Amino acid sequence: MDELPGSLGTSASLALRFGQTIFSTASLLFMCLDVEFYSYTAFCYLVTVMGLVVPWSMTLMIVDVYSVFFRYLPRRPRITTIIILGDLALSYLSLAAACSTASTTYLLVHLGRSYCPAKLCTRYQLSAAMAFLSWFLSLGSSLFNLWLLPSL
Amino acid sequence: MDELPGSLGTSASLALRFGQTIFSTASLLFMCLDVEFYSYTAFCYLVTVMGLVVPWSMTLMIVDVYSVFFRYLPRRPRITTIIILGDLALSYLSLAAACSTASTTYLLVHLGRSYCPAKLCTRYQLSAAMAFLSWFLSLGSSLFNLWLLPSL
Repeated sequence: MDELPGSLGTSASLALRFGQTIFSTASLLFMCLDVEFYSYTAFCYLVTVMGLVVPWSMTLMIVDVYSVFFRYLPRRPRITTIIILGDLALSYLSLAAACSTASTTYLLVHLGRSYCPAKLCTRYQLSAAMAFLSWFLSLGSSLFNLWLLPSL
Repeated sequence: MDELPGSLGTSASLALRFGQTIFSTASLLFMCLDVEFYSYTAFCYLVTVMGLVVPWSMTLMIVDVYSVFFRYLPRRPRITTIIILGDLALSYLSLAAACSTASTTYLLVHLGRSYCPAKLCTRYQLSAAMAFLSWFLSLGSSLFNLWLLPSL
């Protein structure tokens, strides 16, 4: 069971965490690099949530890098439980943020160009898409770790 | 472990399922009883998801009623796993629907009364609130059953 791919400390987990870091950072940057996101609550919420997801997945990525390339870390049930709960909570939060951003952007696009210039709207859409991808990978990590938990 | 409150077949589970049925039906009715929900994708999505949640929670409520009042049903790992996966999937879907509806409604309210008459907007808000409550109870059911799974 120690070889289960996707659980903490394996190379599959490292790949998942790497993807989460990339996508959540991309989502944050697409939303933050223009200054108009304060106008809508949904966009502020996305920025807040991605501000939580980025350090979380980056920390776990560093742990995975250490475990894969340097020294294999033993798994402890308590730490795994905390990671599973954190992943589940963050995946719910990032799904909520992605959905809010997507529906707000959709509505802005359909209201016409006065509410949302073409360049800004594309950015919002890209940011929502990146948030969805980050949610999906976070859900994957969480489920793989959950699968491992009973054997610990 | 058979007495764990909240797992399938207990009275706490019955209460959770009852709440889910009430809230998801209320959310569906608040959204459907006026005919304008076709205009926005988020509202159509909410109606679709609540149309899945209502029969699911109603079926499980009937199973719980049978188990609590008539004859105690033995738990089987495979059926419990299916129920946990269904609950998790539906809780993600209903969270997504609730967030989309809430952010669309928020934007419509802030755009002014021409987009959203006062009576309709209150209905949309109530519908989103009910969807959030339904998500919360569904998450509860799912976590309680998940807690029980390793002991089966």
